[in-house]
Amino acid sequence: MRDTPAADRIKFLRGLRVIRRFRPDPVPQEVVDDVLEVARWTGSSANRQPWELILVRDRERMDALSRIGDSPGLVPLADAALVLVPVLTRENAELDAGRLLERIMLAAAAHGVGASVAGFGSAIPEAKELLRVPDRHGLRVAVALGYPADERARLVSVERDVDTRLPLGNLPVGRKPLSRLVHFERYGSGPATEPGPTVS
Amino acid sequence: MRDTPAADRIKFLRGLRVIRRFRPDPVPQEVVDDVLEVARWTGSSANRQPWELILVRDRERMDALSRIGDSPGLVPLADAALVLVPVLTRENAELDAGRLLERIMLAAAAHGVGASVAGFGSAIPEAKELLRVPDRHGLRVAVALGYPADERARLVSVERDVDTRLPLGNLPVGRKPLSRLVHFERYGSGPATEPGPTVS
Repeated sequence: MRDTPAADRIKFLRGLRVIRRFRPDPVPQEVVDDVLEVARWTGSSANRQPWELILVRDRERMDALSRIGDSPGLVPLADAALVLVPVLTRENAELDAGRLLERIMLAAAAHGVGASVAGFGSAIPEAKELLRVPDRHGLRVAVALGYPADERARLVSVERDVDTRLPLGNLPVGRKPLSRLVHFERYGSGPATEPGPTVS
Repeated sequence: MRDTPAADRIKFLRGLRVIRRFRPDPVPQEVVDDVLEVARWTGSSANRQPWELILVRDRERMDALSRIGDSPGLVPLADAALVLVPVLTRENAELDAGRLLERIMLAAAAHGVGASVAGFGSAIPEAKELLRVPDRHGLRVAVALGYPADERARLVSVERDVDTRLPLGNLPVGRKPLSRLVHFERYGSGPATEPGPTVS
């Protein structure tokens, strides 16, 4: 089963990691086009599509973006080939925006392009000014895109000792196990046993 | 280029649609395992993983779930093979939860399993009671999973005249064009022309 298209896709989805170090190569326009097309087809509540995107390639603007936000230096927006900034055009659009975000990262990864997410946090007003976003719209994060700097760039978020230049601080690495993730039938049921039919 | 692995992955991502009509076949455990594993590896802000999942297969509980929420009858939770309910275990976890949601749908789609999203809306307290979710945690949506009822089941959300049984009402279909999605360098710059380097 491990060589089926399904297995390839699961491996692809399972393997997504943030990339925080980029090499300077530009990302070809046809790759950007694919990312935008996958983003465009993101599903949303009642198909409201409560978003627009700002595509930033200007180096000065990326530098300026990289100097605002919660984690200056952690996510190198300035080193990215381009930055995509989702603009939330409705209230309560965060859940939908998260779907958009994941698809942008996956579409980039489909082409070997890495992505990381930078939260604007308390610097949202500054980001809005820099990007000329009307106050009525929301900003949460920017997505930096670029080719990974090297083979180890995809490991920085899961093996903290690989690149000690990164200020990962006390961020946990890896993911919690299924035993801490999944409940059956109701919350608190305990994850140890799996009832119910499992017929294939 | 259209036969490369990248093109396959883009086509896969691009092609995700909600499925609102399921056939009664159960979903094999190995498929559920893949969905949970892809969900488990979802990235989140500062790797906080602000979620847990409730996996519901009990028919009566799915029936009960299908009777609450904003759109009774629109999303047939009761017809699903299983339902996954993300529990938000931190404040402001919606953006991260959206990423989780998209990966669940994509991992299911990798196996040909359809998914649709039902928002609890104002019925969140009722949903919490039904699923025994502590009041301190958040609930937003449930994801129904199952094999599509037929070839046309994937079309109901993009071609409204295919299945008139569905109360799609005035929901828009398709997606807005790139010209209404993308701004360059700053908001309001207009999407018509694309400046900047596009070297491959």
